[in-house]
Amino acid sequence: MDYLAHFESTLHALKDERRYRVFATLERQAGRFPRATWNSPHGPRDIVIWCSNDYLGMGQHPAVVDAMCETARTTGAGAGGTRNISGTHRAIIALEDELADLHGKEAALVFTSGYVSNLAGISTIAKLLPNCLILSDALNHNSMIEGVRTAGRDKVIWRHNDLAHLEELLARAGSRPKLIVFESVYSMDGDVAPIAGICDLAERYNAMTYIDEVHAVGMYGPRGAGIAEREGLMDRIDVIEGTLAKAYGTLGGYIAGKRMVIDAVRSHAPGFIFTTALPPAIAAAATASIAHLKVSQAERAGQQVAVSATREALVAAGLQVMATDTHIVPVVVGDPDLCKQASDLLLEQYGIYIQPINYPTVPRGTERLRITPGPFHDQALVDELARAMVSVWQILGLPLGDSADTNAVPYNWPMAGG
Amino acid sequence: MDYLAHFESTLHALKDERRYRVFATLERQAGRFPRATWNSPHGPRDIVIWCSNDYLGMGQHPAVVDAMCETARTTGAGAGGTRNISGTHRAIIALEDELADLHGKEAALVFTSGYVSNLAGISTIAKLLPNCLILSDALNHNSMIEGVRTAGRDKVIWRHNDLAHLEELLARAGSRPKLIVFESVYSMDGDVAPIAGICDLAERYNAMTYIDEVHAVGMYGPRGAGIAEREGLMDRIDVIEGTLAKAYGTLGGYIAGKRMVIDAVRSHAPGFIFTTALPPAIAAAATASIAHLKVSQAERAGQQVAVSATREALVAAGLQVMATDTHIVPVVVGDPDLCKQASDLLLEQYGIYIQPINYPTVPRGTERLRITPGPFHDQALVDELARAMVSVWQILGLPLGDSADTNAVPYNWPMAGG
Ligand SMILES: Cc1ncc(COP(=O)(O)O)c(C=O)c1O
Ligand SMILES: Cc1ncc(COP(=O)(O)O)c(C=O)c1O
Repeated sequence: MDYLAHFESTLHALKDERRYRVFATLERQAGRFPRATWNSPHGPRDIVIWCSNDYLGMGQHPAVVDAMCETARTTGAGAGGTRNISGTHRAIIALEDELADLHGKEAALVFTSGYVSNLAGISTIAKLLPNCLILSDALNHNSMIEGVRTAGRDKVIWRHNDLAHLEELLARAGSRPKLIVFESVYSMDGDVAPIAGICDLAERYNAMTYIDEVHAVGMYGPRGAGIAEREGLMDRIDVIEGTLAKAYGTLGGYIAGKRMVIDAVRSHAPGFIFTTALPPAIAAAATASIAHLKVSQAERAGQQVAVSATREALVAAGLQVMATDTHIVPVVVGDPDLCKQASDLLLEQYGIYIQPINYPTVPRGTERLRITPGPFHDQALVDELARAMVSVWQILGLPLGDSADTNAVPYNWPMAGG
Repeated sequence: MDYLAHFESTLHALKDERRYRVFATLERQAGRFPRATWNSPHGPRDIVIWCSNDYLGMGQHPAVVDAMCETARTTGAGAGGTRNISGTHRAIIALEDELADLHGKEAALVFTSGYVSNLAGISTIAKLLPNCLILSDALNHNSMIEGVRTAGRDKVIWRHNDLAHLEELLARAGSRPKLIVFESVYSMDGDVAPIAGICDLAERYNAMTYIDEVHAVGMYGPRGAGIAEREGLMDRIDVIEGTLAKAYGTLGGYIAGKRMVIDAVRSHAPGFIFTTALPPAIAAAATASIAHLKVSQAERAGQQVAVSATREALVAAGLQVMATDTHIVPVVVGDPDLCKQASDLLLEQYGIYIQPINYPTVPRGTERLRITPGPFHDQALVDELARAMVSVWQILGLPLGDSADTNAVPYNWPMAGG
């Protein structure tokens, strides 16, 4: 076995499939977001980010940055230990209290990322339930899929957002313990789960429910607790999972639920137990961000305005915008090479940064630019974006319809993942 | 199925086994470390931390805190995206360059934690190697065990630090790809792997080597690159894994190795791809910490002085100190209840915080207080510690020998984990 040659060949395979990724190096500037500096091959260049998951720009909010710096100055840079061994600090307890309150739950538990919260949360809950069957939506995020796999329990995949299929599988499962795992906003298509219907079924068939609100917390509901809050459904869901790294602008993930459930995960999850706690400075920044978005509607309103303006401008320009009713605006290219070229041209010629989304993140044939307008994208930026995309589409010979035939064409995605 | 009742019963089971953990809530104060405030049931109290993994106190180092705050002020609190989607920032590239240089490797890759770096690193490397056999030390950390499990490959466990056993297993494996995974410093016993011998075997049997230097980086070797650096062995190890959350005082983990290997992990590891990047402020703080410890010997020297002083004082006081030649000073209690009681008494009566280490972190019958002296524990603190422990030992009727019969009794641990 020539190990190096083997790794090299796996990389060649990726390149041949056009799946090899080169990361653009950015430097954001607090106060100037969504503007940033791109370290291009020809030196630093000013660009505008249109694909950030710091959806509301909270990462640069003075209250958030101040909380981070003040806490770092007073308590230091790190937590200094696992939660059990000297790493439980006041700031993380305050954050967990804030999260429990946000979701109207008895308790919350913080992890180092949303990824780890899904991996640890799903696997630990399912492992603790004897003979548990996991019912997982077909388009669930990789972190949920890894949680399902790590559980080592039986699993069935229900067709994306398909309540009839879910019911069929629940009915077939009988009386064994059951855990339904799904997302509220699916981040690549921007569509929303039928949460009320899922709760109805869960109650009828006595299943536990686990929702990932990673792409919704901060942005939906009167206090920013997510889609389940907006629809008055939080108390019907057993476990709500979220991230602190997207709309809240910091780092970390969490689950919230009944005290017994959260305490069981706290006591059993390896991914929680055997790792250093989140630093106090990060916890304090996240708490400040959540607290702000609990009362301020300005960021959410600003985002909605920017999203509508972007969607309208792109549709008017004849671009193939996927129909969604969230803040995610996917524009379909449908080919990995062209998608990458479109992204490169936008960046190099127009200083507009939108990362191409190719397989395996989305199904082949649905390659896209995923645009996430936020409250700091004003009308001038939106107009620039539309103009630049039209030019790039023309350069690449990509189809440009008129608004009549491209608007609101709903996509029917093939099944993937799960 | 009554879900809540079931979770409650799992918690009762833990309580019955004396394995239910209650976390002490601490607030550290930068500049006063190892002193901190404990939020006791009777209000805040001043305590001294003796079990931190911020081993060198770098979490409070002005260069580290300054780097964190300055970067937060200029770039914001979070990364704003996964590495691929707008989350690769200048600070994380600088950190990866610093780490590659630290270990004399072509490349390094940063993860959100050491836990995730092991999980993602080991599983991805083993998955990429067809028919790979993983050879895992029996006392490997849970994050490595999860990496081995997630790989889904054949695995064999070699007896802890036993080269003869490792050779036997390698010889038996034949010519298939092989990955040897082990730690340098084992954190609960403080013993050190026979790294040179492992490298010899790896070369003889054409196996890849993966070392976890989590409890060594920053503290050993002329530039703090770990035990492998101290022993001149870094270039004989394929992948070096470490954390930024212990001696470096911040958060995050990494692997370093040849470009092809690191690039393959970067391109394939779900735990790297599908999660938000470490914030620039954390990356900058970590880089400052590494850069400082590359040139400054003061912290390492101070730690060694404190470790010797502590060990001597405890041995002289007749406490049962495990023989180790690292910075980890375990004092055996041998019973989970007494271990917890000793810890509680030290905290409540003497303001000394040392978390009890019970099963499953260590084998039953070897329950212990794990003491980690650092450069900020001066002789006065050491003397106080020894006096307090003797009193507590007397209150609990725990054995106190004289130095002659308790010193340097080497322990022979039963096999566990792997
Ligand atoms: C649906 C979903 N869940 C979880 C995660 C992971 O969250 P985090 O970035 O905090 O690890 C992501 C993306 O990163 C996601 O898209
Ligand atoms: C040997 C070992 N490896 C890895 C880790 C995980 O590192 P981190 O705390 O950065 O997740 C730990 C402890 O936390 C450890 O003891």
